[in-house]
Amino acid sequence: MHEESTPETLPHSIFGILQSLQRTAALITAVQLDLFTAIGDSGSSPDDIAAHCNASARGVRVLCDYLCVLGLLQKRLGRYWQTGEAALYLDRRSPHFIGDAALQMYAGGPFVEGCQHLTQAVRSGGTALASAGTLAPEHPYWVQFARARAAIGAANGRRLATLLDSSSSGTMRVLDIACGHGHHGIAIAKANPRAQIFAQDWPAVLDVAVGNAREAGVLERYHTIPGDVFGVTFRERYDMVLITNFLPDFGPAECERLLTKIRHSLTNNGRAVALQWIPDDDDRLSPPTAPSLALSLLAETPSGDVYTYRELVEMFRRAGFTRTELRELGPSLQRVVIGHHQ
Amino acid sequence: MHEESTPETLPHSIFGILQSLQRTAALITAVQLDLFTAIGDSGSSPDDIAAHCNASARGVRVLCDYLCVLGLLQKRLGRYWQTGEAALYLDRRSPHFIGDAALQMYAGGPFVEGCQHLTQAVRSGGTALASAGTLAPEHPYWVQFARARAAIGAANGRRLATLLDSSSSGTMRVLDIACGHGHHGIAIAKANPRAQIFAQDWPAVLDVAVGNAREAGVLERYHTIPGDVFGVTFRERYDMVLITNFLPDFGPAECERLLTKIRHSLTNNGRAVALQWIPDDDDRLSPPTAPSLALSLLAETPSGDVYTYRELVEMFRRAGFTRTELRELGPSLQRVVIGHHQ
Repeated sequence: MHEESTPETLPHSIFGILQSLQRTAALITAVQLDLFTAIGDSGSSPDDIAAHCNASARGVRVLCDYLCVLGLLQKRLGRYWQTGEAALYLDRRSPHFIGDAALQMYAGGPFVEGCQHLTQAVRSGGTALASAGTLAPEHPYWVQFARARAAIGAANGRRLATLLDSSSSGTMRVLDIACGHGHHGIAIAKANPRAQIFAQDWPAVLDVAVGNAREAGVLERYHTIPGDVFGVTFRERYDMVLITNFLPDFGPAECERLLTKIRHSLTNNGRAVALQWIPDDDDRLSPPTAPSLALSLLAETPSGDVYTYRELVEMFRRAGFTRTELRELGPSLQRVVIGHHQ
Repeated sequence: MHEESTPETLPHSIFGILQSLQRTAALITAVQLDLFTAIGDSGSSPDDIAAHCNASARGVRVLCDYLCVLGLLQKRLGRYWQTGEAALYLDRRSPHFIGDAALQMYAGGPFVEGCQHLTQAVRSGGTALASAGTLAPEHPYWVQFARARAAIGAANGRRLATLLDSSSSGTMRVLDIACGHGHHGIAIAKANPRAQIFAQDWPAVLDVAVGNAREAGVLERYHTIPGDVFGVTFRERYDMVLITNFLPDFGPAECERLLTKIRHSLTNNGRAVALQWIPDDDDRLSPPTAPSLALSLLAETPSGDVYTYRELVEMFRRAGFTRTELRELGPSLQRVVIGHHQ
């Protein structure tokens, strides 16, 4: 290699990306060891933590130093403290603990298998996983998802209820399609005491949603519709149908089919409300969560994708909606498409 | 979940870390498909790239959008361009292409296996991999490492040669311990036409170093010592012994044993020069590459670790060196410890 041919730009980004697996592995290991639970309010030494975790002090010290770099611990004088986010979500003593669900979602299952078979997915244009990936009936992934994403769902639900001006909407029936943790419908029920929520999802997922509805004090207005959204019959007409983070799981033809079914279930003035990541029309790159989700959907579903507003307008139009509007939940957040059918 | 108990802090960092595996997977897939080589100087569409890569246009578009987020591609009007770093290192047409070696290092082998068995390593305090992990004799990992890290090694080698003022050092014999790509010794040979380099490493690694020495035009002053550094006999005395990125592979006792052997091979005014990541004495967290490397060493070696300058001074002292000095290669870079033995 002659001096004049040695490049100025070094492959630091490339190695950083290739080593990113270490970030995931370190957090999985910490949760597997229940490391965050082992850290006391007044800080803990590697020896303290090792004793609680049945691990070596040397291994704990090295792992904890790296968790400091990841922003989940802080270190002072050889002792470690949890950051606020870790204390809330990764300490088993917290009511918001998501460690077990996060392990189930990220230490194996369709996310990891999707990453392992990503090359095949790019070749074929859809998931290389068996049985339609995460869309297989009653896939346990969605129970894990409902548990792990509860806090984020609750925050988005509150924003959505405000956006939809739910507190002044009067008597209404709300269908929550693929409700997951249920927090979008629950937020509307909390904002509007005259709202009745009808939550649809797989039975095991509905158990999570019903638990959240009970905790929120809205259980008497919370009704369940177990089953596959494409197969189930909606026996009522609804003033609002929530479709949160669900259209991206499917290709455009299935989205159109689902939206048509939803339109038929709406009252005359009813609205379909789709909440999801919607990339910019021009290059689909912004916000960056959208391309990341698109890659996961390629890896884990047969034909899922993120859709621009222009693409969503076309789907709604073909499903018989006469007017759509785009609303923002906040900067760099998911966006909302509201479809009207007359 | 009652409203007052819903936290303000959301687990966004946690999910970002858990999903980091996707970053590694996306780049591995792109290299496996030889995607960067398929992109022309005037930009390429998903259809163009898909045809070259024997992949689906849909899968290629989704992957390329994500590679834009990772900073390895740019997108304009639906076409993709390589960034400078990608063009230099991931395009097979570039003389600096490292894709094959990067795949071997990060799509499997001790890095991936170390991440998969990290919990065991933290429990036991050392690698859970068989046969001492990457320290197994003639482990193929080191050939991949020598190939993949050539450009970074060449840049560090130039900085090291300048730091050591090699051009004015006169006649000298330089022993390059575990030379890898060889670029540290080669840089000294280029700076000082009267330097003779003696490069030690496994035979297959020396093949890479010899190739680099040939390209650098210093082959006639480049000599090889194949074998295990602990087993091999040094038949000469050296004015300088380079120990680059090698002490961290071992525990303190082995480092002391190696440094003692090195001291015995030095001329009277000879110097031992250790180049490596040296974290700050106070908390070991800075630079952040140090804790990351420490975790890899925990996962991949029986007792490797990063060492503070204070710890290194103690090792050198116990090995019989009388004086050490700490030198900087640049901000946030590896540092250099120089040991004198009289």
